[in-house]
Amino acid sequence: MKIGIINVTGYAGVELARLLHQHPQVELASVTGRSAAGQSLSEVFPHLAGIDLTIKAELGDVELAFVAMPHKESVKEVIPLLDKGVKVVDISADFRLKDAPQYQRWYGFSHPAPQLLKEAAYGLPELHRAEIASAQLVANPGCYPTGAILALAPAVKAKLIKADVVIDSKSGLSGAGRTLTLPTHYSEANEDVSAYALEGHRHLPEITQELNLLNPQPSLSVTFVPHLVPMTRGILTTAYAPLASGKKGLEELKKLYQDFYKDAPFVRVADSPPHTKQTWGSNMCLVYPTVDQRTGWLVVISAIDNLVKGAAGQAIQNMNLMLGLPETMGLEALPVYP
Amino acid sequence: MKIGIINVTGYAGVELARLLHQHPQVELASVTGRSAAGQSLSEVFPHLAGIDLTIKAELGDVELAFVAMPHKESVKEVIPLLDKGVKVVDISADFRLKDAPQYQRWYGFSHPAPQLLKEAAYGLPELHRAEIASAQLVANPGCYPTGAILALAPAVKAKLIKADVVIDSKSGLSGAGRTLTLPTHYSEANEDVSAYALEGHRHLPEITQELNLLNPQPSLSVTFVPHLVPMTRGILTTAYAPLASGKKGLEELKKLYQDFYKDAPFVRVADSPPHTKQTWGSNMCLVYPTVDQRTGWLVVISAIDNLVKGAAGQAIQNMNLMLGLPETMGLEALPVYP
Amino acid sequence: MKIGIINVTGYAGVELARLLHQHPQVELASVTGRSAAGQSLSEVFPHLAGIDLTIKAELGDVELAFVAMPHKESVKEVIPLLDKGVKVVDISADFRLKDAPQYQRWYGFSHPAPQLLKEAAYGLPELHRAEIASAQLVANPGCYPTGAILALAPAVKAKLIKADVVIDSKSGLSGAGRTLTLPTHYSEANEDVSAYALEGHRHLPEITQELNLLNPQPSLSVTFVPHLVPMTRGILTTAYAPLASGKKGLEELKKLYQDFYKDAPFVRVADSPPHTKQTWGSNMCLVYPTVDQRTGWLVVISAIDNLVKGAAGQAIQNMNLMLGLPETMGLEALPVYP
Amino acid sequence: MKIGIINVTGYAGVELARLLHQHPQVELASVTGRSAAGQSLSEVFPHLAGIDLTIKAELGDVELAFVAMPHKESVKEVIPLLDKGVKVVDISADFRLKDAPQYQRWYGFSHPAPQLLKEAAYGLPELHRAEIASAQLVANPGCYPTGAILALAPAVKAKLIKADVVIDSKSGLSGAGRTLTLPTHYSEANEDVSAYALEGHRHLPEITQELNLLNPQPSLSVTFVPHLVPMTRGILTTAYAPLASGKKGLEELKKLYQDFYKDAPFVRVADSPPHTKQTWGSNMCLVYPTVDQRTGWLVVISAIDNLVKGAAGQAIQNMNLMLGLPETMGLEALPVYP
Repeated sequence: MKIGIINVTGYAGVELARLLHQHPQVELASVTGRSAAGQSLSEVFPHLAGIDLTIKAELGDVELAFVAMPHKESVKEVIPLLDKGVKVVDISADFRLKDAPQYQRWYGFSHPAPQLLKEAAYGLPELHRAEIASAQLVANPGCYPTGAILALAPAVKAKLIKADVVIDSKSGLSGAGRTLTLPTHYSEANEDVSAYALEGHRHLPEITQELNLLNPQPSLSVTFVPHLVPMTRGILTTAYAPLASGKKGLEELKKLYQDFYKDAPFVRVADSPPHTKQTWGSNMCLVYPTVDQRTGWLVVISAIDNLVKGAAGQAIQNMNLMLGLPETMGLEALPVYP
Repeated sequence: MKIGIINVTGYAGVELARLLHQHPQVELASVTGRSAAGQSLSEVFPHLAGIDLTIKAELGDVELAFVAMPHKESVKEVIPLLDKGVKVVDISADFRLKDAPQYQRWYGFSHPAPQLLKEAAYGLPELHRAEIASAQLVANPGCYPTGAILALAPAVKAKLIKADVVIDSKSGLSGAGRTLTLPTHYSEANEDVSAYALEGHRHLPEITQELNLLNPQPSLSVTFVPHLVPMTRGILTTAYAPLASGKKGLEELKKLYQDFYKDAPFVRVADSPPHTKQTWGSNMCLVYPTVDQRTGWLVVISAIDNLVKGAAGQAIQNMNLMLGLPETMGLEALPVYP
Repeated sequence: MKIGIINVTGYAGVELARLLHQHPQVELASVTGRSAAGQSLSEVFPHLAGIDLTIKAELGDVELAFVAMPHKESVKEVIPLLDKGVKVVDISADFRLKDAPQYQRWYGFSHPAPQLLKEAAYGLPELHRAEIASAQLVANPGCYPTGAILALAPAVKAKLIKADVVIDSKSGLSGAGRTLTLPTHYSEANEDVSAYALEGHRHLPEITQELNLLNPQPSLSVTFVPHLVPMTRGILTTAYAPLASGKKGLEELKKLYQDFYKDAPFVRVADSPPHTKQTWGSNMCLVYPTVDQRTGWLVVISAIDNLVKGAAGQAIQNMNLMLGLPETMGLEALPVYP
Repeated sequence: MKIGIINVTGYAGVELARLLHQHPQVELASVTGRSAAGQSLSEVFPHLAGIDLTIKAELGDVELAFVAMPHKESVKEVIPLLDKGVKVVDISADFRLKDAPQYQRWYGFSHPAPQLLKEAAYGLPELHRAEIASAQLVANPGCYPTGAILALAPAVKAKLIKADVVIDSKSGLSGAGRTLTLPTHYSEANEDVSAYALEGHRHLPEITQELNLLNPQPSLSVTFVPHLVPMTRGILTTAYAPLASGKKGLEELKKLYQDFYKDAPFVRVADSPPHTKQTWGSNMCLVYPTVDQRTGWLVVISAIDNLVKGAAGQAIQNMNLMLGLPETMGLEALPVYP
């Protein structure tokens, strides 16, 4: 089966290429990237020397394409692919939100194809596996939403949480992409921690959309603050919420989470607080739910590799479902540790 | 004026030595350290080559001593010093809590001198300046409490906060000290973020003690989770709390903080979210209060260098007050950036 | 085929477990580790949760064993295994040197089985492929020697080098192992570069032994200085040597290296100066030979992941040869980048 | 005394501002920076909040100016200042080389004021103290040359070295400046070591110029390879050279270095291999000379903070000499460690 990547030259794109190379059932047949068009993939990215492909300006014939364009650009690439009958996993935000006006509010543009928002599946297999399997278009979740939703979904679904939730996320720098910026300049980011997007991060509406689908009443009030920490990969999310009805036993809570994720091959309910390092390079999400025994607040910690479960790995997990392949195919490699 | 350091060989101890060296009015006259006794300070710590002192087993005659022992050990060193009339800044936790039974609960020992807990001043000058100035014994605050209390004090004092507070702190590794442990082994800590002490961190009772002093009703319910991030110095604290009575204007909030800290030379209300890097090596605490306009929650971020404002620098600030010197003396150096 | 690991709890041990897990033809059947005996592998190393094994005190029945003990301890484990007919890849230094008295000089012990030194193959497949394939005992090379010998072998073999060679290596911290030491304490190693072992590093005799085998006359005079740099994985080696007979064309030099390594699947002659990051988690060694056009000195740079090509990956490469499997089996994963 | 900085917005510029702020005898009175003109210094650089200055487009009246422009741009700023009688410390390369044609060769431009190259003092006080004290124009050395020349000067002067020298330098990322580039993008530089400028680095002619001044015969053949290591500050230089006449005693060698630097307050001959971390934020250069006892090669290691002794600190050291102030004034702060 031939697979393509539109805009292979960002971090999500090269991670897709790395992971697809070790997939036994699909062939990475075509990659595009405007600035690097004409160069061999291994010339631009020496770590991909095992892949013999030239970066082209236009995508060749493929059965499924990953589109890794910036938001607003992505939808323009996706529509003609859909028209040709190609299956698409879109890595951008362009099809994640079901409510079209949200694009004006959060992304500053009027969505050109609102009807597609209904058709697109939100590509978090742990919540939408069946829908993804039958979709032509899957919107791959953002990195923060992946960690945050997986941390909270079982508790929200079980109505353990009152209205208020605090989500404090700590991300490595690769989440900010390969585009040069001052905050991602080495000497600025190294040996530093900072919060950002205090006025509202674009990943917030994804988080509330998905959590509210799990339990519409009450509508959750989510305070979300992302932070940059000096490492390349990984997101640790610490979610806090007052329990709806008094204290909850730790064993009971753990059991609830294990049951929720019993069919999810890439979520593991951890026995101890997880480290992002325990997911490096892998598609695993580690989730650790607990209760602060003094305050009765639920505290859930999740760890992912933002470029794998938070981007390229989850995209391949979605591809597997869309193509009727085993969900874990090509994603079995263990994390690289230490 | 002769000053001494008991147990100079930890990170707080060497940072005290570094800072005292540039203090114009006091003389670092005596340092102790059991394992390194007999060696010159510069032999063990080449960066202190400018200081000509031998590490001794016993402290010489000094007017004021910094005691940088582990908890439970510290009180044993402090009592004889007090008896001799020496002023003491204790870096450990042994005199921070006013309520003696808390030592059994949080530190696992019965405090041998509970009467001293009343006498000791809690050494956060922004809250207890006058008390510190007249004290013979000052308990230097913990690193997390320094960042957390300074973030929340103005809001608590102004009764802006309901009962619940979430404090999410991100600390560099030097906060864990110089003692070798697996979590502070380079290859384990590097490229990793993790939460720890979910069952309750020892710095929590300090935080609640001081916040409740500012506003006893209602008693605050504090959920505090510390995290390790891969850097050497710095603590970023993000504090979250629902506002007591609806939304608060940002300008009004900022003004409240500026007024609270108008006489505090080492707290600056920042114009943008602070970076720990902006405090590296300096005694400044940067505080940034804001309100999440969607949820109405107060979010306050503070940044400190855990070894300076979170330990040695604050200790010298206390010393200055105790000796009648200008509060900022010897602590004027700007942060080292980038 | 059943495979075992003696002392799985060091970094080489867990990396062997990670890589063997994705090997299609062998089964990791038994692992030992004294301090952790009785615990499940995934309890001690959560990233290995995909492997269902208990750490035992004694090795079970296996066809081939990796021995990852400290030097001097390793030989004691290896001899009984050989007597039982088990094939052994020894990760320690205990069988790397052919000349028994060198053990007294460099490792401070009298080798208890000098006859085995002749039988053991030096496990650098690029130089000793046939010998390894027929050996019962293979001595896996040190991490520094792997990078240094692969950088210099083609030039030495072609007699391009006069007597003097300078080898300047920069290693990440995982090369120093999982044992706690002050130089590998996070706050000491982070944001720091230093040289060490200036009085002579134990990897030096390996390097000279192998280079002199390639060209016995003249005996090379190797000045080798290892350095620690603040990262977890990777060794970059920069080797310098005056050319034996005037300047050499760059194309000719590159051709010489390409020819030398034309049958080596894990050495790539790079088109630009290699980055250690381009080998992260993979068994590739990147080699970049050039000539300083002003001075006529040969400069060769090599990059490896010290835990893969410098330890566990190379050990599996040796295992493949010993078991008659394709050399690259189980080692095809691309580097994890960035 | 009023002092100015032209182009304060680079890393050398802000480091000058930080250090001048703690200088007791000079006043930082004017700073320029084209892109940030009109903004307050503390707005652009919050760590400089203690300095109340607005960044201007044009320099005000000052007695001495630091010019921190890129090469080729700097000379245009320097000439009018000299004409006005202002003393200048130029941070760029524009006046470091005595031989005008070298600018065409290494920097690609024809030097517009070759007569000034003779007048300018090369601002390495350890070699040119008297010349600097009487100069109107001082060319502040490059960061690599500072570390390399201080490592080798005593040995070259004493004619210990034959013709060949290898200089292997490891630099933190701040040496590459604040301008955004792919190699200094966090996710590219982190967890990576690489060599660069193998075709010849622009700092090489400075190094050879100064070493050959110390001992013209024989002309040294210097092979210099710079490397980037993942840290913000610091350069470790390891220099290798065959000794001219057999082995040299270590004590004798150390004595030679100590004598050479006996009047140099910012060079310390270290007792053990230096760490860059031991110089963080300070103007010290640590030098450690030794001899490889097997090969008879001289090995000298030096450590500096590239932004202090390698740039801004040395510039202030030069300023002190030019203004008749004590050489160490304002530069006494100890390194920030760990």
